[in-house]
Amino acid sequence: MRNLKLTVAYDGTNYSGFQRQAGWPTIQEELERALSVIVKEEVRVTGAGRTDAGVHATGQVVNFFTAGTIPVDRVPYAANSLLPPDIVVTAASEVPGSFHSRASAIRKTYCYLVRTGPFPSPFWRNYAHHVKQDLDIPAMQSAATHLVGRHDFLSFRASGSSVRTSVRTIHRLECCTEGPFIRFIVEADGFLYNMVRIIVGTLLDVGKGNLTPESLPAILAARDRSAAGPTAPPQGLYLESVTYPT
Amino acid sequence: MRNLKLTVAYDGTNYSGFQRQAGWPTIQEELERALSVIVKEEVRVTGAGRTDAGVHATGQVVNFFTAGTIPVDRVPYAANSLLPPDIVVTAASEVPGSFHSRASAIRKTYCYLVRTGPFPSPFWRNYAHHVKQDLDIPAMQSAATHLVGRHDFLSFRASGSSVRTSVRTIHRLECCTEGPFIRFIVEADGFLYNMVRIIVGTLLDVGKGNLTPESLPAILAARDRSAAGPTAPPQGLYLESVTYPT
Repeated sequence: MRNLKLTVAYDGTNYSGFQRQAGWPTIQEELERALSVIVKEEVRVTGAGRTDAGVHATGQVVNFFTAGTIPVDRVPYAANSLLPPDIVVTAASEVPGSFHSRASAIRKTYCYLVRTGPFPSPFWRNYAHHVKQDLDIPAMQSAATHLVGRHDFLSFRASGSSVRTSVRTIHRLECCTEGPFIRFIVEADGFLYNMVRIIVGTLLDVGKGNLTPESLPAILAARDRSAAGPTAPPQGLYLESVTYPT
Repeated sequence: MRNLKLTVAYDGTNYSGFQRQAGWPTIQEELERALSVIVKEEVRVTGAGRTDAGVHATGQVVNFFTAGTIPVDRVPYAANSLLPPDIVVTAASEVPGSFHSRASAIRKTYCYLVRTGPFPSPFWRNYAHHVKQDLDIPAMQSAATHLVGRHDFLSFRASGSSVRTSVRTIHRLECCTEGPFIRFIVEADGFLYNMVRIIVGTLLDVGKGNLTPESLPAILAARDRSAAGPTAPPQGLYLESVTYPT
């Protein structure tokens, strides 16, 4: 059996998320449908990140095992000819059998896009979170520094989810402006459920003046979801890249 | 009666164009529906440009007459609360009764967006024309210079349309790269049916090496649609702004 690794970009607007759910359109189902045709057998793909409904990816990574003989460099072209236009395979390579897109990942990077201005843009309604008021960027940048490093991010985890530990290491958390956009970039060794969206929602509360940058350590220390800000909406979130050991 | 001028941005993906057509979703119909509620009487809007199905606008201008008393600065907020999210009114002002969004316009600017790369982007499928091969930008820029100025653009008019004269003046025709994008900007005193899309289709033929920049004068002189290149698809086209006498 060969183990194939694919890089996938998708517009998550019309999907109920990455992970297969009976009766709902998902990225996983579309990928499995197209790849099964190509390799002439049923395949199951594993994704590095289980993005939610409406969340996008520019660099999701999936892998799947197959006895199929298609040359690996033909896989993106063959898959894209069968996939809907809102899902695009951008790269493919053969990897060792031990490679697992999620378990082997050592870092993931998410990007979150906010668009400011008096009126929402018709072009960005599904691709950025619109915020009317001006935001205090230096305050958000200052607040972000408190979250970088190894912390217990229990306050930034959606309630109801269960994982063994809520300690994660954020290697990078940046917030920069690009014209009417504010781009947040978060790179970590792993993420809790809704962690990026709660971090962004909390930083936006700082940017709006509802919270001070200095309140972040206490929010972390509370280890309580209700201490942090609201969950930012899904349409601004992009799974940008996944890093593996070289 | 007051004459109100609105600036409107819209994502044309889900519409059969600007102009009202019975049984098809149009921008004009949506605007008239929302505005009629606001001013409590039936209104008819006139648009500066009749954009086709799938064509977008960042700065379409419309005007309409009304006896309604709503303060003009409230119109964008009131309209946007009633419009679908892919149509946004970004400005409103009261203008003299003699103002006509189309007849009073002295210049219009269109932008056409091309995205290059081996694979199409899922995010730009409705917002840019995807071209696989690398394009010769200096050749396209050189070809463009032949079209600037006052010319008979009959070769760049979709067959079947009828207007009195096909002489127009292009004030500006630029082609520049921005990362994976190539942006064409065309500013003219007026446009023939499909003129921008045929100009872009012809310049792309130059960029691909199918035509030389020096062939442009002969294409203009032919005064025959078949002499020019193909019509570029609608999703890359944006009505950017409309200029009126000050």
